[in-house]
Amino acid sequence: MLPAAVAAMTEAMGRTGNASSLHSAGRRARREVEEARESIAAALGARPSEVVLTTGGTESDNLAVKGMFWARRAAEPGRTRVLVSAIEHHAVLESAEWLVEHEGAELVLLPVDEVGRVRPETLAAALAEAPERTALVSVMWANNEVGTVNPIRELAEVAHRFDVPLHTDAVQAVGVLPIDFAASGVDALTLTGHKLGGPYGAGVLLLGREVGAVPLLHGGGQERDVRSGTLDAPAVVGLGTAVAKAVADAPHRAVVLAALRDDLVARIREIVPEATLNGDPGDTLIDGGPSRLPGNAHLSFPGCEGDSLLMLLDAQGIECSTGSACTSGVSQPSHVLLAMGAGDAVARGSLRFSLGHTSTEADVDALVAVIGPVVGRARRASAGSRRRAAPVAGS
Amino acid sequence: MLPAAVAAMTEAMGRTGNASSLHSAGRRARREVEEARESIAAALGARPSEVVLTTGGTESDNLAVKGMFWARRAAEPGRTRVLVSAIEHHAVLESAEWLVEHEGAELVLLPVDEVGRVRPETLAAALAEAPERTALVSVMWANNEVGTVNPIRELAEVAHRFDVPLHTDAVQAVGVLPIDFAASGVDALTLTGHKLGGPYGAGVLLLGREVGAVPLLHGGGQERDVRSGTLDAPAVVGLGTAVAKAVADAPHRAVVLAALRDDLVARIREIVPEATLNGDPGDTLIDGGPSRLPGNAHLSFPGCEGDSLLMLLDAQGIECSTGSACTSGVSQPSHVLLAMGAGDAVARGSLRFSLGHTSTEADVDALVAVIGPVVGRARRASAGSRRRAAPVAGS
Repeated sequence: MLPAAVAAMTEAMGRTGNASSLHSAGRRARREVEEARESIAAALGARPSEVVLTTGGTESDNLAVKGMFWARRAAEPGRTRVLVSAIEHHAVLESAEWLVEHEGAELVLLPVDEVGRVRPETLAAALAEAPERTALVSVMWANNEVGTVNPIRELAEVAHRFDVPLHTDAVQAVGVLPIDFAASGVDALTLTGHKLGGPYGAGVLLLGREVGAVPLLHGGGQERDVRSGTLDAPAVVGLGTAVAKAVADAPHRAVVLAALRDDLVARIREIVPEATLNGDPGDTLIDGGPSRLPGNAHLSFPGCEGDSLLMLLDAQGIECSTGSACTSGVSQPSHVLLAMGAGDAVARGSLRFSLGHTSTEADVDALVAVIGPVVGRARRASAGSRRRAAPVAGS
Repeated sequence: MLPAAVAAMTEAMGRTGNASSLHSAGRRARREVEEARESIAAALGARPSEVVLTTGGTESDNLAVKGMFWARRAAEPGRTRVLVSAIEHHAVLESAEWLVEHEGAELVLLPVDEVGRVRPETLAAALAEAPERTALVSVMWANNEVGTVNPIRELAEVAHRFDVPLHTDAVQAVGVLPIDFAASGVDALTLTGHKLGGPYGAGVLLLGREVGAVPLLHGGGQERDVRSGTLDAPAVVGLGTAVAKAVADAPHRAVVLAALRDDLVARIREIVPEATLNGDPGDTLIDGGPSRLPGNAHLSFPGCEGDSLLMLLDAQGIECSTGSACTSGVSQPSHVLLAMGAGDAVARGSLRFSLGHTSTEADVDALVAVIGPVVGRARRASAGSRRRAAPVAGS
């Protein structure tokens, strides 16, 4: 967390006050919440009334996918089709799958190209098949695993051409890429605090004023009657501080992180020439920003198991990930890499290094110093386990 | 918030680590989360595996009511009836109403007696009408407005006699009344951090091991596949600390608060003899604890508007509530008082004074010093507005 966000939140925690209460402490908490809401709106080109405060990315994604589906279908019962990219976060994918199982929805997974991008013509073709039966589209702004940025403005234009709203999970994008909600044309946008130096348990669904969403959580109707639950005023204050700071710092941070990332990739490939960078190379512009998340380096190490690499690097004090952290700690080949056409072995031999506002050149040096021996050891372990497994496979 | 909970949480916020990540920081966060889970389970007579971590009372209530309904109906499609007490929190009531509108459920509101209690024979009669069509019962442990405690153990026995599970919203009860999840026999229990000195945005649904619930939030499946979303490790740590402390202190706190509350009520009624205490008088025992929340004083002041009283007291530095804070700051006659048979005028002329771990005799003195003039002024204002309104009403 950004120190400024921790400070703002800790100070707010020491006070009391339910932001829906009428007494002074409640009104003060409400004022602080509304100031945070205005600050989030201003940073992202939205109106304060479009900021629906939630408990994070998962709730925002669930509310967007299910809530917009319910609202659209209630207005036009024939709209039961949901178009979702094949590389979405599980919160979007599993919400859509639940709509299939539970609500009779039809799920269309939008394929991606070899760098993990949803092409506008792919979306247009999927929409053209049955525009009048389609309830919504959901495509993430930037992918959390391989870092590829989608042409969201163009995708929103395509969706609107068919009179279908578009939601985007921008959890990875806010505070890194230039985001202007109004200019992007999207109807709903998910962001979460803990990805931009803010608190866990605080997020937002930006929801266009004209966009309908049936609530997911019922209760007091605190947020525009779209969302209920006592507002976590301290976390909202921390979130407001973090969003404002992260967005203000984004242009500078993007340049610094991209340079660090390019250095990391180049130096790893000097030592391990077979290593390949997955996703977009990041050398073009999309909507005024880079075509790859600047802090993302996602590499495949042929002949290695990602889990072995992760544990060996962890023992050296280097923390990285295989796939996404959001799947209960269960290690499975990444659905993102599989959708990009990677084989199972490549998908299993991949690692994601994430650079953030605390990363330095010294961190890259530390990784470069150990990557050679670590890859060598992982490769021997992997070859050993294949030899041991062979008789069974052949029996 | 309890200072110990703020300290534990602030310390945890300074660290990083996603509790579902495999690297060291992730594993440390996971260990802290699991320790907090064990501490919550131990304090409440539950197993760690029965502790489903959520973002608070609203989410827990929504998950219990909708999730248990979906699970039960999936197993037996004829079970579409939902029995909910008329005095539930909006998070339960509106979840049940949504099941009616959206899922074709049949909602039966269980009436309460004049102190706001659900009598076991009332529940038995409602169940007996169509036990084989009933999916679940939800009755709160103690009411948030008038403080009346329900005989939850007995209600759970009645529900089980008809093979129907019972959920209870125990947001007001944990840390105040003796709670033993296993001994109570309930199938699911809601609690939230900010009502017991813990953080906002952190709660629990205790869910019996054999009790099915279909998830409300889909994603990584982090919590027993019943609940998804990145765990807010710092808030969970703060919640664990707060629950352990609040439960340990409950027996002593209950005695202190009840004495303070009785003093407050007696001294107000000396000055304003027409004031009446709503809810159970708190002079008997239910399941080993008091029959009224010890910190709750809910009084009606005939001839006054609650809103006027609230604002006049607020100007004197005394913060209280009309009804519940959880309804978007909109002032409406309380559904709880109306269910207890109070007239609209009585319901509008009521105030709730809540005493907590920071309340002192000096706070009661301060209230007693101003209540006489405040009631006099509110009564004159109310009489004046009735006179002004009269010609319109007669025209």
